[in-house]
Amino acid sequence: MEKLKELSAEERLCWLRLIRSENVGPITFFQLLSRFGNAESALDALPELARRGGRKKPIKVFSKSRAEMEVQSIEAFGGSMLAACETDYPLALAMIADPPPVIAVKGHKHLLNQDILGVVGARNASAAAIRVTHKIAKELSENNIVIASGLARGIDTAAHQAALFGGTIAVVGGGIDYPYPRENANLQQQICEQGCVIAEQPFGTVPQARHFPRRNRIISGISLGVLIAEASPRSGSLITARLALEQGREIFAIPGSPVDPRAKGTNNLIRNGATLVESAEDILAVLKYVRIRPLKEPDIPTQSFGHSGLADEQEANMARPHLISLLSPTPIEIDELIRQTDWHPATILTILLELELAGRIERHIGNRVSIIE
Amino acid sequence: MEKLKELSAEERLCWLRLIRSENVGPITFFQLLSRFGNAESALDALPELARRGGRKKPIKVFSKSRAEMEVQSIEAFGGSMLAACETDYPLALAMIADPPPVIAVKGHKHLLNQDILGVVGARNASAAAIRVTHKIAKELSENNIVIASGLARGIDTAAHQAALFGGTIAVVGGGIDYPYPRENANLQQQICEQGCVIAEQPFGTVPQARHFPRRNRIISGISLGVLIAEASPRSGSLITARLALEQGREIFAIPGSPVDPRAKGTNNLIRNGATLVESAEDILAVLKYVRIRPLKEPDIPTQSFGHSGLADEQEANMARPHLISLLSPTPIEIDELIRQTDWHPATILTILLELELAGRIERHIGNRVSIIE
Repeated sequence: MEKLKELSAEERLCWLRLIRSENVGPITFFQLLSRFGNAESALDALPELARRGGRKKPIKVFSKSRAEMEVQSIEAFGGSMLAACETDYPLALAMIADPPPVIAVKGHKHLLNQDILGVVGARNASAAAIRVTHKIAKELSENNIVIASGLARGIDTAAHQAALFGGTIAVVGGGIDYPYPRENANLQQQICEQGCVIAEQPFGTVPQARHFPRRNRIISGISLGVLIAEASPRSGSLITARLALEQGREIFAIPGSPVDPRAKGTNNLIRNGATLVESAEDILAVLKYVRIRPLKEPDIPTQSFGHSGLADEQEANMARPHLISLLSPTPIEIDELIRQTDWHPATILTILLELELAGRIERHIGNRVSIIE
Repeated sequence: MEKLKELSAEERLCWLRLIRSENVGPITFFQLLSRFGNAESALDALPELARRGGRKKPIKVFSKSRAEMEVQSIEAFGGSMLAACETDYPLALAMIADPPPVIAVKGHKHLLNQDILGVVGARNASAAAIRVTHKIAKELSENNIVIASGLARGIDTAAHQAALFGGTIAVVGGGIDYPYPRENANLQQQICEQGCVIAEQPFGTVPQARHFPRRNRIISGISLGVLIAEASPRSGSLITARLALEQGREIFAIPGSPVDPRAKGTNNLIRNGATLVESAEDILAVLKYVRIRPLKEPDIPTQSFGHSGLADEQEANMARPHLISLLSPTPIEIDELIRQTDWHPATILTILLELELAGRIERHIGNRVSIIE
């Protein structure tokens, strides 16, 4: 991905069309960009790539008119779009393995490139956890840390409210315009005015369960670290902690009594090395070192298609059946596929890209893929 | 200290007299034993040593008749005395820097050399902490871990009660016969019958505040590790944790919400490396490895007086004023005194021994001494 290049309106429209096209996720997006040099050429290539991957009916390419409509809606709403290569896009987010190629933002964009701490926790949080979270978020806010959260009930709400004055970012699961949850419609509006709201999903999208893990990767992705205030086992907050860890971000957790099941998750995080947090100081002491650490260069896409750009189609045709035979519904690392075969890595990546566009494989965190049965 | 040697009644009486004599603490006791070969010779030397240390009025040597009376009282009470060199004496306790040379015990002595976990915590513990402690102690008990505690209200009581059937040891602050606190008189009686009670203080001693830190070193001293269930900052439980750490024992702590000041101490222990405990399993997982580790040899007394046994008195007379000038009310490590002077270590140890017997210096944890102004 080329960094820190402002796109023309036309180019940004192509980015939007590409990521909104069928079977194109963030990883595929950046692989296509790397392979074809720009989004426009990638868009042109989509039908043929999907066909090679085994797609029978034509792949749905997002139309220019729909993209224009989306941009117009966001602008009418008072927001704007940011592409991952642009300067206003959060640099920390650009460094994760699967950054959203385009986000919609509304509010004070400068907050996106400040020192951010993500705060997540249970919706049905205890009064104690809410009180502690509010206190910590407020103190962090007073120490120039921007607080990011997900606008949910409970912990999220406490974190946003405490940091409203100092600077807070709400990452929403649906479209940037969709007020969710209803009871936080006012808060969402306030954050649009005083803070900043981010959305990855298209304008007008009603948030659904499957959107939230993707939303959570953005909360941790824009942040230096994530504070998990209260989390029962197998909760969304723990998924966020795992994502944050994979993104190389700091994990902070508030402990709780073993009699409270809502503390099980955070206690377990602490047992596994998360920083135990009782006050803002505990977080600031760690962030002090994280902030002076130079940010590493974005490592997406990690896999190059080589100088040839395009893998030999004949070789791809020979390798495809072999590669498909190695895939199963259990996700496997792409590196492992490369190790287990004699095919050129560029060939394998090309085949996987085509299979994904054809809707036959699914990408997973940790550079893994599985077949869709 | 010679290990695993049974004493005659006569020898045990001499041990008792020596430790009950004025200004003789456990460390001095074992230094005297090392220097004079046996307690009887050390008793004979006490007056001269104290005089050399600057003692004006004669040092009070504990009389044989009083020692006999104490032994008789303990036996009439149904208890017995154990010297640190004897097989029934808890081996783990013999390995600390300052084991009690003689303890009174009542009950099932075999518990003293089993796998023991110490449990300490606040007297005004929360209902949640008491509930968790009871559950954990019960489960450990069912897994053949003997539970040691201090018979206090709150956490101690919960731990003892939970482990009454499986095996529990009460280390009391006063005499073995003295029921304290009153409301636990029945529990103390039950533990005498079903478990084991240990006392370092003389028979009939009314427990006083200063006895409790010394009592706590025994709780951790007989244990493989100590569980701190709930502890406010600067509480006795935290002192026990520190003692346990200095004794090389495992530290376990139950986390709690930052809003509860009684969890500050345990959360801080966890932050500093204590094992976070939510259930008995968390403790068993650690003890599994501690139990198979060979017990190290007792390292008391660490300092040898050399082959000559007695340091040259003339040299001691020359060194004494210099050494005293180096001492202050701030404790200093004995090793540091040895480093800062040219005097032979045996000379320095002799002078310190004499000063202590004269009541002019005080020993502290960490092999340190301070002058008594």
